Amino acid sequence: MGPHPAVAAIRLAVRRVLHDILTEHNRTTAVPTGAPRAAHDTALETSYALPGPPPREPLHAAPHERPPSPLVLVACSGGADSMALASALAFEAPKLGIRAGGITVDHGLQPGSDLRADEVVQRLRELGLDPAESIAVTVGRTGGPEAAARDARYAALDAAAVRHGAVAVLLGHTRDDQAETVLLGLARGSGIRSLSGMAAVSGAGGRYRRPFLGLDRQTARKACMVQSLPVWDDPHNSDPAYTRSRLRQEGLPALEKALGKGVVEALARTAQLSRDDADALDAWASQAEAAVRDATGLLECAKLYALPPAVRRRILRRAAIEAGAPAGSLFARHIEEVDRLITGWRGQGAINLPGKVVAQRQGGRLVIRQG
Amino acid sequence: MGPHPAVAAIRLAVRRVLHDILTEHNRTTAVPTGAPRAAHDTALETSYALPGPPPREPLHAAPHERPPSPLVLVACSGGADSMALASALAFEAPKLGIRAGGITVDHGLQPGSDLRADEVVQRLRELGLDPAESIAVTVGRTGGPEAAARDARYAALDAAAVRHGAVAVLLGHTRDDQAETVLLGLARGSGIRSLSGMAAVSGAGGRYRRPFLGLDRQTARKACMVQSLPVWDDPHNSDPAYTRSRLRQEGLPALEKALGKGVVEALARTAQLSRDDADALDAWASQAEAAVRDATGLLECAKLYALPPAVRRRILRRAAIEAGAPAGSLFARHIEEVDRLITGWRGQGAINLPGKVVAQRQGGRLVIRQG
Repeated sequence: MGPHPAVAAIRLAVRRVLHDILTEHNRTTAVPTGAPRAAHDTALETSYALPGPPPREPLHAAPHERPPSPLVLVACSGGADSMALASALAFEAPKLGIRAGGITVDHGLQPGSDLRADEVVQRLRELGLDPAESIAVTVGRTGGPEAAARDARYAALDAAAVRHGAVAVLLGHTRDDQAETVLLGLARGSGIRSLSGMAAVSGAGGRYRRPFLGLDRQTARKACMVQSLPVWDDPHNSDPAYTRSRLRQEGLPALEKALGKGVVEALARTAQLSRDDADALDAWASQAEAAVRDATGLLECAKLYALPPAVRRRILRRAAIEAGAPAGSLFARHIEEVDRLITGWRGQGAINLPGKVVAQRQGGRLVIRQG
Repeated sequence: MGPHPAVAAIRLAVRRVLHDILTEHNRTTAVPTGAPRAAHDTALETSYALPGPPPREPLHAAPHERPPSPLVLVACSGGADSMALASALAFEAPKLGIRAGGITVDHGLQPGSDLRADEVVQRLRELGLDPAESIAVTVGRTGGPEAAARDARYAALDAAAVRHGAVAVLLGHTRDDQAETVLLGLARGSGIRSLSGMAAVSGAGGRYRRPFLGLDRQTARKACMVQSLPVWDDPHNSDPAYTRSRLRQEGLPALEKALGKGVVEALARTAQLSRDDADALDAWASQAEAAVRDATGLLECAKLYALPPAVRRRILRRAAIEAGAPAGSLFARHIEEVDRLITGWRGQGAINLPGKVVAQRQGGRLVIRQG
């Protein structure tokens, strides 16, 4: 008899991602195409001349050597999603010759959070993860409590990945988290990039992977239950002080009641489609931008006018950011006003943008600079 | 003292749209550029030689003559939004030399709906609209009750516009309606086109105009109140049997509670941005499609592969529809499966699509046809 369907589902999701990671890892560490692949460590074939005999199986690989087997970490809060992820990683990694480790971040936001973190580390060890460690961070205030906690968490995970030489860090976000992220983006009303939710692969060099983006929260919960994994429910997840938890507790259920059960799946699919669309339009804007600049690098209004509005506004937004406008303060209405210098020209004056950036039309050129 | 702010807002919205309509109307009926514009009716300069003296101001313009002044109709249910629209049209049209008329559609879905329609016509007449008439339609069943009613309504409005020679028909959809439409599109999960809501200008030749897309429902309601206009609340609008009314009564309020008051505005802005994005990507796909077909018209897999996923999938969708797949039954998952013939080719067999359309890869070409 095979494993419970929920356990099979989480393992399959992790196996697929580990496959991808391994494929990419082997590609980047492989000898160039055409050269015969030696049976021994390829690092020995580099031009580095090491003094003494080559080490046989170094515990800690030096920068010029290929480590014995790649390490994949899981970021684990102790909640159901990331505990399920940790269990699936512990099960699948050895079969693929991958080492599996786990990190839990102690945000220090509740009394006793350090003890909680130690407990999570203990559970990760019991799953066979090595290394398994807790990292304490100090959460700042920039951007609100949720953003500050996230920033601190990712900084700690980045540092841990580098320190351990991990090729990837797995994150436990589910399809439900994705749906919530899309709705949060929708509330900003700033276009399809903010509807594209979380990427399956993100971070420097594609470090972060989200194997559960296509799985629902219920499956992760079920997988923990049938594997008798103790899980911890973060009180933040149901604290109505947080926008995301209000959305989870009330917003999404009400939307499901009005629109039907498929809403979460539809939101997750919207994220993927929006991401692809936003990527394509960004690529178009990049190409078009070069073509609409004159010899001195100024934007030519007539050429901008000929572009589709979606492409033109992306170029304008990019130019404003390049001139020093902070991306987070630059709203659709700012770009629309700049756009009217192109599409509704009737001699209007300079337009003030965030970050003391000024946009004005001069002799058929658009000048955007910090004033 | 000027009018109440709500009345000023609805009038401004209508004035802007009437200006656009007039500009376009004058452009299409103007004499060719370069020719001197005579003070008298330009129709007299055509090659038609009329017997007798030229008519001075014909009541009903013959086909070869320019009508005395363009007619704009308002579609009015008797509810607050469209009554406010009718009142603003009645006020603004004469100042611009436009004739204003009104149509109400009797869907025949409730007993006494004909009397209700007569009442609405009476109110339109009292506003000074001429023509003012009610049209009875028979609502079918195709696509569910809301879609069937909409189809019947637009067919009647189209016919009325043609019969009266109207240059435009104004519709009372507000920003709140737009927000609901975006959420309904989101629930389909079929991408940014379905997020783009209702267009400000739509229909054959841009016949339909929605002056209130940027105004909230509350403003329209207020404008009716301060003008002492009696309005009728359609019981369908609060009937939980309808998805849209569930959304209006419960879904959107819950979302606002979770995400804050700006949700409706954010959704409406998302509609506009998504529409522009979808238009640009459709244009890209149109251009790219020609370039990826071989001499015999078949799609070349290698060329498709080189395109951004967002553009490639639009081409695949278009090809499937062209081959006979009904657009409404063709879901994202269908297109993804066809896409894997390009991006994940491992010898898979033919893929069955709705409408008995079959997609398969043959010798580096993608063949999509009804089988």
